Amino acid sequence: MIEYDCKEFKRDVVSLSSDIRSFAPQTIIAIARGGLTLAHSLSQSLDIRDVQVISAVSYSHDKQLSTIKITNIPTISTSRILVVDDIADSGRTFKEVMTILKENNPSSEFKTASIFYKKSSIFQPDFRLKEAKEWIEFFWEKF
Amino acid sequence: MIEYDCKEFKRDVVSLSSDIRSFAPQTIIAIARGGLTLAHSLSQSLDIRDVQVISAVSYSHDKQLSTIKITNIPTISTSRILVVDDIADSGRTFKEVMTILKENNPSSEFKTASIFYKKSSIFQPDFRLKEAKEWIEFFWEKF
Repeated sequence: MIEYDCKEFKRDVVSLSSDIRSFAPQTIIAIARGGLTLAHSLSQSLDIRDVQVISAVSYSHDKQLSTIKITNIPTISTSRILVVDDIADSGRTFKEVMTILKENNPSSEFKTASIFYKKSSIFQPDFRLKEAKEWIEFFWEKF
Repeated sequence: MIEYDCKEFKRDVVSLSSDIRSFAPQTIIAIARGGLTLAHSLSQSLDIRDVQVISAVSYSHDKQLSTIKITNIPTISTSRILVVDDIADSGRTFKEVMTILKENNPSSEFKTASIFYKKSSIFQPDFRLKEAKEWIEFFWEKF
């Protein structure tokens, strides 16, 4: 288990921002809840005022594969959009969110970012920093 | 100038959560961008999955009083809603946001929360922790 603290987070936001900057996103969409804190700091670091949210909730069914329900789908009016989450774990959340966003906004360009990714994720974000090899306890999750 | 760091933030989330818990909110609305990180941690601490965002942007006009533009007004389906921002400074953002949300959702009960408040604020959140007597540099703003 890794404790992911604020100091590491701030360094990671700086690194991610320098990777993302050339894309020049006009809107950040946070995948809630995991991506909210990252979206906030990236929006400050990259000076992007337009931050929106899309919600993804997993429901488990009798230990079978869970279902992901996507809600609060934002209406977008800009052309370059960055979608962020804390981790691409199974990758299913990113995959489903991006399918919906692209269907709804065929003329916008989307890129994705996360701090962590798993090698086994079926979706690899365009901007990603660190491979997750064990359970990560994010500072925004532990109270 | 006060540097507001992550350790103090985590203590403050615990304090705010214990004040808020009896209200039992079903939805948290973050006032973007300032309230995003707080909304995320409160949603974890209080175990509230439904987090939404409303955007408030100030525009200055030739050093006159600024205009606040409220966008991304969420559609709400729950009855107890907590609206959060990092600080009630002038209080104008909270005031305008709450006017719109209450007009649009007359049957919902709203409460508001912020970490900091100014004594001079025209809007005092229901749950607030600390009086802001000088400029506060939040850790999510400094990169």
